[in-house]
Amino acid sequence: DFLNALSEVRPAYGVSEEELESRVQGGIINFGKHIEEIITEGKLFVQQVKNSERTRLVSVLLSGPIASGKTALAATIALGSEFPFVKLVSAESMVGMNENARVAHVNRVFEDSYKSPLSVIVVDEIERIIDWVPIGPRFSNTLLQTLMVLFKKQPPKGHRLLILATTSERTMLSRMDMTQSFDAEIAVPNVSNVTELDRIIQSIDSFADSNVRADTLQRLQNFTGTDAVNVGVAKILMIAETAKQDVDVVSCFVEAMARAIPME
Amino acid sequence: DFLNALSEVRPAYGVSEEELESRVQGGIINFGKHIEEIITEGKLFVQQVKNSERTRLVSVLLSGPIASGKTALAATIALGSEFPFVKLVSAESMVGMNENARVAHVNRVFEDSYKSPLSVIVVDEIERIIDWVPIGPRFSNTLLQTLMVLFKKQPPKGHRLLILATTSERTMLSRMDMTQSFDAEIAVPNVSNVTELDRIIQSIDSFADSNVRADTLQRLQNFTGTDAVNVGVAKILMIAETAKQDVDVVSCFVEAMARAIPME
Amino acid sequence: DFLNALSEVRPAYGVSEEELESRVQGGIINFGKHIEEIITEGKLFVQQVKNSERTRLVSVLLSGPIASGKTALAATIALGSEFPFVKLVSAESMVGMNENARVAHVNRVFEDSYKSPLSVIVVDEIERIIDWVPIGPRFSNTLLQTLMVLFKKQPPKGHRLLILATTSERTMLSRMDMTQSFDAEIAVPNVSNVTELDRIIQSIDSFADSNVRADTLQRLQNFTGTDAVNVGVAKILMIAETAKQDVDVVSCFVEAMARAIPME
Amino acid sequence: DFLNALSEVRPAYGVSEEELESRVQGGIINFGKHIEEIITEGKLFVQQVKNSERTRLVSVLLSGPIASGKTALAATIALGSEFPFVKLVSAESMVGMNENARVAHVNRVFEDSYKSPLSVIVVDEIERIIDWVPIGPRFSNTLLQTLMVLFKKQPPKGHRLLILATTSERTMLSRMDMTQSFDAEIAVPNVSNVTELDRIIQSIDSFADSNVRADTLQRLQNFTGTDAVNVGVAKILMIAETAKQDVDVVSCFVEAMARAIPME
Amino acid sequence: DFLNALSEVRPAYGVSEEELESRVQGGIINFGKHIEEIITEGKLFVQQVKNSERTRLVSVLLSGPIASGKTALAATIALGSEFPFVKLVSAESMVGMNENARVAHVNRVFEDSYKSPLSVIVVDEIERIIDWVPIGPRFSNTLLQTLMVLFKKQPPKGHRLLILATTSERTMLSRMDMTQSFDAEIAVPNVSNVTELDRIIQSIDSFADSNVRADTLQRLQNFTGTDAVNVGVAKILMIAETAKQDVDVVSCFVEAMARAIPME
Amino acid sequence: DFLNALSEVRPAYGVSEEELESRVQGGIINFGKHIEEIITEGKLFVQQVKNSERTRLVSVLLSGPIASGKTALAATIALGSEFPFVKLVSAESMVGMNENARVAHVNRVFEDSYKSPLSVIVVDEIERIIDWVPIGPRFSNTLLQTLMVLFKKQPPKGHRLLILATTSERTMLSRMDMTQSFDAEIAVPNVSNVTELDRIIQSIDSFADSNVRADTLQRLQNFTGTDAVNVGVAKILMIAETAKQDVDVVSCFVEAMARAIPME
Ligand SMILES: Nc1ncnc2c1ncn2[C@@H]1O[C@H](COP(=O)(O)OP(=O)(O)OP(=O)(O)O)[C@@H](O)[C@H]1O
Ligand SMILES: Nc1ncnc2c1ncn2[C@@H]1O[C@H](COP(=O)(O)OP(=O)(O)OP(=O)(O)O)[C@@H](O)[C@H]1O
Ligand SMILES: Nc1ncnc2c1ncn2[C@@H]1O[C@H](COP(=O)(O)OP(=O)(O)OP(=O)(O)O)[C@@H](O)[C@H]1O
Ligand SMILES: Nc1ncnc2c1ncn2[C@@H]1O[C@H](COP(=O)(O)OP(=O)(O)OP(=O)(O)O)[C@@H](O)[C@H]1O
Ligand SMILES: Nc1ncnc2c1ncn2[C@@H]1O[C@H](COP(=O)(O)OP(=O)(O)OP(=O)(O)O)[C@@H](O)[C@H]1O
Ligand SMILES: Nc1ncnc2c1ncn2[C@@H]1O[C@H](COP(=O)(O)OP(=O)(O)OP(=O)(O)O)[C@@H](O)[C@H]1O
Ligand SMILES: [Mg+2]
Ligand SMILES: [Mg+2]
Ligand SMILES: [Mg+2]
Ligand SMILES: [Mg+2]
Ligand SMILES: [Mg+2]
Ligand SMILES: [Mg+2]
Repeated sequence: DFLNALSEVRPAYGVSEEELESRVQGGIINFGKHIEEIITEGKLFVQQVKNSERTRLVSVLLSGPIASGKTALAATIALGSEFPFVKLVSAESMVGMNENARVAHVNRVFEDSYKSPLSVIVVDEIERIIDWVPIGPRFSNTLLQTLMVLFKKQPPKGHRLLILATTSERTMLSRMDMTQSFDAEIAVPNVSNVTELDRIIQSIDSFADSNVRADTLQRLQNFTGTDAVNVGVAKILMIAETAKQDVDVVSCFVEAMARAIPME
Repeated sequence: DFLNALSEVRPAYGVSEEELESRVQGGIINFGKHIEEIITEGKLFVQQVKNSERTRLVSVLLSGPIASGKTALAATIALGSEFPFVKLVSAESMVGMNENARVAHVNRVFEDSYKSPLSVIVVDEIERIIDWVPIGPRFSNTLLQTLMVLFKKQPPKGHRLLILATTSERTMLSRMDMTQSFDAEIAVPNVSNVTELDRIIQSIDSFADSNVRADTLQRLQNFTGTDAVNVGVAKILMIAETAKQDVDVVSCFVEAMARAIPME
Repeated sequence: DFLNALSEVRPAYGVSEEELESRVQGGIINFGKHIEEIITEGKLFVQQVKNSERTRLVSVLLSGPIASGKTALAATIALGSEFPFVKLVSAESMVGMNENARVAHVNRVFEDSYKSPLSVIVVDEIERIIDWVPIGPRFSNTLLQTLMVLFKKQPPKGHRLLILATTSERTMLSRMDMTQSFDAEIAVPNVSNVTELDRIIQSIDSFADSNVRADTLQRLQNFTGTDAVNVGVAKILMIAETAKQDVDVVSCFVEAMARAIPME
Repeated sequence: DFLNALSEVRPAYGVSEEELESRVQGGIINFGKHIEEIITEGKLFVQQVKNSERTRLVSVLLSGPIASGKTALAATIALGSEFPFVKLVSAESMVGMNENARVAHVNRVFEDSYKSPLSVIVVDEIERIIDWVPIGPRFSNTLLQTLMVLFKKQPPKGHRLLILATTSERTMLSRMDMTQSFDAEIAVPNVSNVTELDRIIQSIDSFADSNVRADTLQRLQNFTGTDAVNVGVAKILMIAETAKQDVDVVSCFVEAMARAIPME
Repeated sequence: DFLNALSEVRPAYGVSEEELESRVQGGIINFGKHIEEIITEGKLFVQQVKNSERTRLVSVLLSGPIASGKTALAATIALGSEFPFVKLVSAESMVGMNENARVAHVNRVFEDSYKSPLSVIVVDEIERIIDWVPIGPRFSNTLLQTLMVLFKKQPPKGHRLLILATTSERTMLSRMDMTQSFDAEIAVPNVSNVTELDRIIQSIDSFADSNVRADTLQRLQNFTGTDAVNVGVAKILMIAETAKQDVDVVSCFVEAMARAIPME
Repeated sequence: DFLNALSEVRPAYGVSEEELESRVQGGIINFGKHIEEIITEGKLFVQQVKNSERTRLVSVLLSGPIASGKTALAATIALGSEFPFVKLVSAESMVGMNENARVAHVNRVFEDSYKSPLSVIVVDEIERIIDWVPIGPRFSNTLLQTLMVLFKKQPPKGHRLLILATTSERTMLSRMDMTQSFDAEIAVPNVSNVTELDRIIQSIDSFADSNVRADTLQRLQNFTGTDAVNVGVAKILMIAETAKQDVDVVSCFVEAMARAIPME
């Protein structure tokens, strides 16, 4: 029966690790002090789940703006736990399923985790899993309620579970009373200024030369009239890739960045 | 037929007792005078159901803020009744079920109770059972109506039933006219000040030393500028467990508590 | 065919009489002049259905606050008619049924009544039968429309029917144009003052002694500062039963009554 | 094929005539000049359908307050037409049916009428057929649309149809653009004053004596302070029947009438 | 295969021509200059579909008040095209069908048209096809979207299609962004004044005599105090037919017209 | 397996290329500098998808007013990519399908694309695919969520995908948070003035003569009092085709254009 349970759990694990790894393909660039702090705090919860007798379930919400790196950070913490069961729940793996099938899928992942002594589940982009749209607003209350219950449901004795959820709609979750379902929260901010931006484009070959970088950032600041950036790391990496196709890489990058930087 | 009924009821009972016991795993800490008063009032209703000819059904609502200990107290009263049928109805045991299955499940528990001479049913977190979400607001009217009817439905002659329901959404229940379905209500408050907080962390080994405790509470008061706490006992116990993983337990505890204490 | 019809009707009748009797288990206490008036008016409609050629169908609405005794009085009038078909339609007998099944059930009771020469149907708590909840508001329009049609549908020639319906939501029924479906209305008020309250607690052994009663009512008036009561008879009887379990019956009763009496 | 069609139509016809007759059981009392005018106007439409080449379909709406006699008047016109197909469509004949079955039923009646050379269909209480309730408001749009289409759908060549519909919710129908579906409208008013009331109670044996009547009306006017009545004829007949059961018929009638007469 | 397609298309065509002809039974009375203009503009679109290489699909909306003659004019243009496939899509032919069946029916007509080299489809009363009701408002979004897509969907190469749609709810269609689905629009106005009215009643035998007509129009103007009419031609023809049944045709006509003419 | 996959993909590809070609039947007229810029920017994204290691998925939104040429431009970029898998997703290919079938269809196209090393998918008129209507507003949240997820879902390793979506409802998409699902956006404007209009009608034989054109544009400007046009290229081409059927081509064109040009 134990072997049986094990064999049930294994393949699922293998698949998900790969999936989670694909979410950090861009790597984790240490562009600000808070990046390390987030990972350290994540490790604290990993330890608590491993060690505490009283709290065998801990659920944590990572929230922040679009493209700020929430999924990559959650995946990094999850993979770093080295727990035997690590699994990703995302809207992408449920595309085309109806509401019932999606409830069953989510529920199944949690049921599977209860068979492992130590598990991490990454629930990515809650707003997409619950079909959130601000017009109405509309959402699947069935999936919302399922998540709210699962986020607080104790695993059976002898089993421990860490839940890492991500969202770019924290305000909405709070209006739904869902933030109360979490034991703790971690904020993931945007790239805030050109100093942080500098550290990010270092990693891109077209900007390897520090003079090119200095020139690029100067032109950008002239353009926007500020050293503020306030754009997500993922968005910046995408803009850099498009710019690489252009004959004039720097101009293309500067213009697209300037469009992406929000006006005061 | 009697034996038959008994055998139907037994297994259900066994399972639920265990489930209910798991809800008081953190124990009941006597951190304020009101804790005993709540349990005494609970016993009064247990006696009434046992003895009164006229009122063989009594339904009681325990309401209070998130994490204030409602479920643990309801479970304590239920287990203390020593009635032969003690059962928990919670959203957790119905996760993944559709509305019809959930109505059937709830109804089944009540039907089962009608076969026992003396029963207690704990209906935990009504807001979750009825899929309540404040946006809209939305909820399952089918489950709401089922509960409203079952809370007032007399068991057959010779059978007696105590219903203990919990909620952190009393205002919402009142707007739904559901509070009228109860014969009595019990309020479960938050931990109100540092004196009560002191009694709670006594039970935690890291804070066994009274000097450490005094220092911790002093630092917390300096931080918040008040001796008010207004946080649920369950939240406090969770924060203490996370803090235990940190190298600097006290600082971690004080900072997290300060974040949890609501501003005036 | 007549015998056939009879045998169909019989068992239904038997069951319901018992059910209706259980609704007057607390008896009818003559605590005010209006109690007799209500029963007299009820008898007038019983007579009209029996005798009038033109009006073989009469539908009456009993409305009043929660716990004021509506169901007990409707049951008393129905049982007093001594009609061969007496039946209760209530949400309790339909708990767990879906909307279609409930429409069929209600319809069935009326169809059955059409086979009896003389029938009374008690439709108890219309708001529960139609799944009313003030948030939204929501309700089953299907059940509402079914009732509205059945309340006005003439039984076939040679058949006569009295409908007694109860509600604590008269305002809502009126907003739904449902009060128009009734031929007449009867108001069932709360216990209005301590004089009426005195007559009610006389029936309870703990308060048999008139000195105890006088003392109790005096303490209550001191507490509330008024001789007004405005609480339903059923609520008062429930409070008295709980108080009986306490060591200090009178204090317990006075405190609970004071909580129940609405502030000006 | 013609015989076939005939046999299909016959039984339906027979049933409905009886049904329609039951709607005028109280007779048509000539309590005001407008009663005859309504019937005369009805006959005009009967003639038009019979004779006009251009307008083989005529649809007429009878509207007025609750209990004002709409159904009885529509039934009288329909039965007076002596058309070979006369049929009643009412919510009562569809109670317990779901929306689809009701659409099919209504449609069936119209399809049947298209087989007869000359038909009248009485569509009674449109608001009930479409499940209208002012809260929301809610209604069956499917039935509404079905009626709107059928009210304007030409019968096949050589076939003629008169539609008489009734409603007490003309304002609502107009807000739904449904009044536009009718070729003509007839208003059915309440009993307006004591002179008309006098003519109505003449028909009731308890009030056969003109002195009793004079006394009754005088007492009523003293009570209300006006000679206005503004109550439906059906309501008045119901009140008179209840009063007949009382020992003091006149007092009972006067009091109930006074309650029914709307205040200015 | 070609023969096959042909045989599929034929019977449908035959039926519809008859149906369309029945919509112009009242004839087209040339009561104003705009009548000819509308028909001329219609012919322009017929030519464009026949000849243009670039625009093998043209969709036109005829809009105007209730009873203004929209359907009769659309049918006249369609029948005048002499295209081999001429078909009417109307709510009447779909009465009793559910939403799915109606989508399938509409879709089927368009699919059939794609098999003919040259087709006209009249889509009559869009508001009824989409179940429009202003309360809510409510409508079938499924049918609306189906129409919006079909109105812009190009027929396959070598096939050409003219779509003539009618509505009396142009404002609503515009709020739904549906007017954008049309390539062109034609307005169909009411009969505007007594001069136009004169030309209409000429065609009715009771008003053949020009003195009678002059007298009738004079009495009408005295009644309304204006020479404005602003009533649909179909309504006028209906009123004339009813009047013909009355002993005093002119009075009956004048009174009914006066009721129909909107007040300023 | 590779051959297998190939054979699965092939036929789909063939069909869609034809479909996409039919969307540029009117050709791409170079009526303004921005036309070339749009196509150049499109090519940049084609290159990025082909070359970038980090961004194997790029999604681009083309938005602009009705008839401005969005679909033709997206089709042009897609066909110019010469990727082995080019596919159109449009409401037209899903007409008559229910929501589930449409989700399955859309999902299928994306699944198919994941089998090709290099793919372009044109998602045409998002507002129609999601059944958008501004009254309510209403839309299919299921299709919206499906698109939002698919627009961000990475193809498997070794596979690359460019998504080109079009909409004339950018504001609505932004209120739905859907614009965030795109990596980049391209604006497609209306024909702005008579200079651009001149270049468009050059391509039409009736206006081949430059004097005729000059005269036409002069008359138009006299009519509207401005050289502004602000009408979509597709609308202009349609008006020109209708005008060609008229005896007086220029007048007909000028009048229809004047009606189409929005007032200030
Ligand atoms: N310090 C960092 N933190 C997070 N991601 C980083 C960091 N440095 C580089 N990255 C890369 O940036 C990308 C972040 O994208 P990710 O999808 O995690 O953002 P997100 O906030 O989840 O976006 P979305 O709001 O769309 O869900 C990843 O490709 C990741 O590898
Ligand atoms: N005096 C006390 N009263 C209640 N619970 C206590 C007390 N002392 C310690 N506890 C512990 O605190 C925890 C209270 O959590 P519980 O789940 O009962 O709170 P709750 O109010 O039901 O929370 P929620 O709002 O999430 O439902 C339990 O672990 C319980 O053992
Ligand atoms: N005069 C009285 N009238 C009505 N009930 C009385 C009276 N005297 C005593 N009773 C008892 O009081 C109780 C009234 O409860 P009942 O359920 O009829 O009230 P209700 O108004 O129907 O309540 P609810 O609003 O919950 O439906 C019954 O147990 C009945 O036996
Ligand atoms: N002049 C009259 N006109 C109509 N009904 C009359 C008249 N005189 C007597 N009656 C009687 O009055 C009653 C009228 O009731 P009827 O059901 O027709 O009213 P209604 O307006 O249709 O009521 P509801 O609004 O409930 O549908 C019938 O019993 C009828 O026989
Ligand atoms: N000039 C005219 N234009 C249109 N219809 C005319 C004209 N002259 C006479 N008619 C007749 O008037 C009637 C017009 O009715 P039709 O049903 O076409 O109006 P409609 O606007 O479609 O009405 P509805 O708003 O109810 O759909 C037809 O019977 C038609 O034969
Ligand atoms: N420069 C151009 N850009 C786009 N389309 C052009 C251009 N020149 C000519 N055309 C033609 O104009 C028409 C543009 O129509 P298209 O359907 O692409 O517009 P659209 O914006 O997608 O319209 P809709 O808002 O209805 O979807 C096509 O027939 C195309 O061949
Ligand atoms: Mg993410
Ligand atoms: Mg709880
Ligand atoms: Mg009751
Ligand atoms: Mg009626
Ligand atoms: Mg029409
Ligand atoms: Mg397009």
